[in-house]
Amino acid sequence: MIDNLITSIQNPKIKKLVSLQQKSAERRKEQLFVVEGQRELSHCIEAGFQIDTIFYCPALFSEGTTIESLLPNSANTRCFEVTPQVYGKIAYRGTTEGIVAEIKEKHHSLASLKLKENPLIIVLESVEKPGNLGAVLRSADAAAADAVIVCDPLTDLFNPNLIRSSIGAIFTVPTIACSSAECISYLKENHIRILTAQLQDSHLYYHTDMCAATAIVMGTESTGLTQQWRTAADAHIRIPMLGQLDSLNVSVSAAILLFEAVRQRNAN
Amino acid sequence: MIDNLITSIQNPKIKKLVSLQQKSAERRKEQLFVVEGQRELSHCIEAGFQIDTIFYCPALFSEGTTIESLLPNSANTRCFEVTPQVYGKIAYRGTTEGIVAEIKEKHHSLASLKLKENPLIIVLESVEKPGNLGAVLRSADAAAADAVIVCDPLTDLFNPNLIRSSIGAIFTVPTIACSSAECISYLKENHIRILTAQLQDSHLYYHTDMCAATAIVMGTESTGLTQQWRTAADAHIRIPMLGQLDSLNVSVSAAILLFEAVRQRNAN
Repeated sequence: MIDNLITSIQNPKIKKLVSLQQKSAERRKEQLFVVEGQRELSHCIEAGFQIDTIFYCPALFSEGTTIESLLPNSANTRCFEVTPQVYGKIAYRGTTEGIVAEIKEKHHSLASLKLKENPLIIVLESVEKPGNLGAVLRSADAAAADAVIVCDPLTDLFNPNLIRSSIGAIFTVPTIACSSAECISYLKENHIRILTAQLQDSHLYYHTDMCAATAIVMGTESTGLTQQWRTAADAHIRIPMLGQLDSLNVSVSAAILLFEAVRQRNAN
Repeated sequence: MIDNLITSIQNPKIKKLVSLQQKSAERRKEQLFVVEGQRELSHCIEAGFQIDTIFYCPALFSEGTTIESLLPNSANTRCFEVTPQVYGKIAYRGTTEGIVAEIKEKHHSLASLKLKENPLIIVLESVEKPGNLGAVLRSADAAAADAVIVCDPLTDLFNPNLIRSSIGAIFTVPTIACSSAECISYLKENHIRILTAQLQDSHLYYHTDMCAATAIVMGTESTGLTQQWRTAADAHIRIPMLGQLDSLNVSVSAAILLFEAVRQRNAN
C-alpha cells in the first residue's frame, strides 16, 4: 500500500499537491481537489468521492489510528508516507491529524438532485468568500437542507478554505454551481417557492410561510441580489435589524432563515 | 492639529502602535487599544470612548473626506499623518480607509449595566477565539440585545481581531468581562432566567419562552458549559441538529437563539 516515503518538499508529488491547494486553475485542469483532516476525509469517502492520492504522517496519528483504519478501501489509492517536516509544509492546520488527500472532483447537477417532499434549499448568488460559503454549508447540514445552489459563483466549490470552513458539509450537503437563469427555471419547474432576502417590499421572515417547498435566496453582503432574482421571487423576506450596525454576516443570516424553516416545520 | 508627518516604520510611535496591536499585555499596561477603519472609529466615538492618538493617511481617504470630518472633536487627540508606505504596515486591511487610532480603554461592569424591561442578554463562557466573540457581538447588535457578558474570558475584549470581526459592535453593545460566579449572582438577583445551551435534559429552543427577562448562556464548541452554569440554569435548551455533522459555530448558534427571542417578542 505504501509506495514510498517522501522526505523533501521538493518532491514533484508535493509540488503538485501544493499547486492544487493554491490554484483553482490547477484544480480545474487536473479535476482534483485537496482535503485535509481525518473527519473531513471520512465525510468525503462516505459521500462516494474517489480518493486519488494520500499523503500521511503516522507520527501525527493518535494512538490506535492506522492508515488502514482511515482508508478501509484503498485499492485504487496511491499512498505516500511523509515526514513530519514535509507534513508541516503541506497542512494548513500544521501538525494536527496527519492526513492530506487528493480527491477526484465530482459535480452535482440540478438534473441529478433528489428532493424530499417540501424541500428546503438555500441559493447564494455570486458569493465571493469561500469561508462564507463553507459556513453556510455547515448550517445547511445542521438544518438538513436538501441542497445549496451557488449561482454565478466567484469561487470554485473545491477551494480549500471552503472545505475547511464547511468542516466537511461540502460532502454531506448536495452543492450545485449553475447560472441564476438555470436555477430560476429549475425552481419554477419544480414548484419551489422563491423567497429572496431583500429589504424592498419585504415581509418579516417569521411572518412568511416556509413549510411548503422553499428556496431561500441570498445575495452578496455588499450589493444584494440582482434584478432577475427580485423579479422571480414569490415573496421578499427580511431579518429585522434592531441595532445600530444594520448588517449581518451572510452565513449568520442564512442560519437564522434556515432554522426558522426548521421551527415552522417542527414546532407544532 | 497635525503634529508632524511620520515616514518610517522605525518611528517609536509606530513601534508602540504595532505593539498595542499584537500584545494584550501591552494593551493592559498602557490601557490603550487600537481601532482601524472609519466606520469602526465613528461607532467608537459615538460610544463615548476617548481617542488618544490618530494615525492617518489622507492619500487613502475617499474624495471629500478630511481628518476634521472624521474627528469632529479632536482637542485632546494627537494626530499624526503617515505615508502610504507606513500605513500599509500598520493597517490589517492594507490600504483601505486610511485611519488607525489608539483608544483609551473603558470597561463596562455589571453594576453599571442599564437594562431594559425584559432584557435579553447573551453570556459566553470561556470563549477562546476573538473572531467568534466579534461575530456574536455583531448578531447581538442586530437583535438589540442588552448586553454580552463574557465569563472567565480567554481573550481580552480589545483584541484587534475581535474589534474587526464585530465591525464595531464591541462599541454599540455593552460588553462585560467577569467571572461566572459574579454573572450567575447578577442574573439571579435581577430575576433574569438562565437558559443554558446544552444537550442534557434539554428542550428545543423554540419551545422555550424567551419573552421574559432572559440570558442565553453558551459554552465553548469543544467542551460546552461548566457545571456551575448547568446547576444555575432555569432551563436547558438545544438547537436540533438534523444533519450529519452535529455541530454549529458558536456565533451561528447565538444568532439562531437571539433571533428566536426577537421572533417571540415581536411575532404577535
